[in-house]
Amino acid sequence: MNFSSKLLESAVNEFSKLPGVGQKTALRLVLHLLNQPAADVAGFSNAITRLKNEIRFCQVCRNISDLPVCEICASVKRDKTIICIVEDTRDVMAIENTGQYNGVYHVLGGLISPMDGIGPSDLNIESLVERSSGGEVSEVILALSSTMEGDTTIFYLYKKLKDHSIKISAIARGIAFGGELEYVDEITLGRSIATRVPYENSLMK
Amino acid sequence: MNFSSKLLESAVNEFSKLPGVGQKTALRLVLHLLNQPAADVAGFSNAITRLKNEIRFCQVCRNISDLPVCEICASVKRDKTIICIVEDTRDVMAIENTGQYNGVYHVLGGLISPMDGIGPSDLNIESLVERSSGGEVSEVILALSSTMEGDTTIFYLYKKLKDHSIKISAIARGIAFGGELEYVDEITLGRSIATRVPYENSLMK
Repeated sequence: MNFSSKLLESAVNEFSKLPGVGQKTALRLVLHLLNQPAADVAGFSNAITRLKNEIRFCQVCRNISDLPVCEICASVKRDKTIICIVEDTRDVMAIENTGQYNGVYHVLGGLISPMDGIGPSDLNIESLVERSSGGEVSEVILALSSTMEGDTTIFYLYKKLKDHSIKISAIARGIAFGGELEYVDEITLGRSIATRVPYENSLMK
Repeated sequence: MNFSSKLLESAVNEFSKLPGVGQKTALRLVLHLLNQPAADVAGFSNAITRLKNEIRFCQVCRNISDLPVCEICASVKRDKTIICIVEDTRDVMAIENTGQYNGVYHVLGGLISPMDGIGPSDLNIESLVERSSGGEVSEVILALSSTMEGDTTIFYLYKKLKDHSIKISAIARGIAFGGELEYVDEITLGRSIATRVPYENSLMK
């Protein structure tokens, strides 16, 4: 693209670094911002700067939090003996939205991915092992994505945690509720048959 | 959505004000930024602030420009007797990319849209009338979108300019090159027949 201004070009380039944003979308977003009042643009830019500079992570679960210990970890109503291990804060939000879980979380901050140069030492795994070995935890639930990276991370965590005499479980995999059988992909359907459960176990308790 | 942090929430809210960005996409973009080095995030935020604070518009054509007069208006190779009237800088880029136009531009900065509260006085129309009445301009080309707002603006500009003894033309409308007839919408096809041109005129010169 030929830009008539270097300032415009640099703003468009910055926007197009965002995932899923190409040059055309970036230009649309930049021109939109340019049409907004200066105060709104300053607000946008401030929110990003403050986020990066002032963000804190819960000392216990490493979730994004404004307080040293997040609301979930600080709540007396939550069951501290169960830890649900997730990739990032989006997964915490997704599980909280279900209203089905009353334990606490541990946010890894990513998944092991040799392709992207992310190893176990880049994730919050040490602090998880520490938490789990205190004797207070009875179960950890591995709630990671069903991808190569997710499976690698699950295998690594399993090896790290299996000697701590705690129950290690993983979220159930299978066909989605409300899903029509003919549209389910082959691998999921094949595994669903191979890992079938007694009918009574498949009912909600 | 329930956010675990006010900082996170405010950044997501700012992003979701952008056109075509919902809360889920905004969260994905914000978490992406959060994973970037602080210098990159500062660069992103600076580019936006600088854009808004330092951006300048060409004194002649009102296109975005780093100089008082933009490269196109300053070029001796461009034909100053023809002015192409466009909505915004994206349209200038699109027409420049065709390589078919050697005149200069005039950027309106929007289209007349009573629904959005944009009237003629909000656009760069006065400066266009001034430019056109100097006697140096022989033709203006109305290159505006084929929408209600575009047509309203074209009609307004036509009334403003018709007494200046300059040629007023509009870009051709019809079926797209390479388009299959059966997929063309009814209005475009109907108009294409009604406004048919002699075969020799439809050939590129």
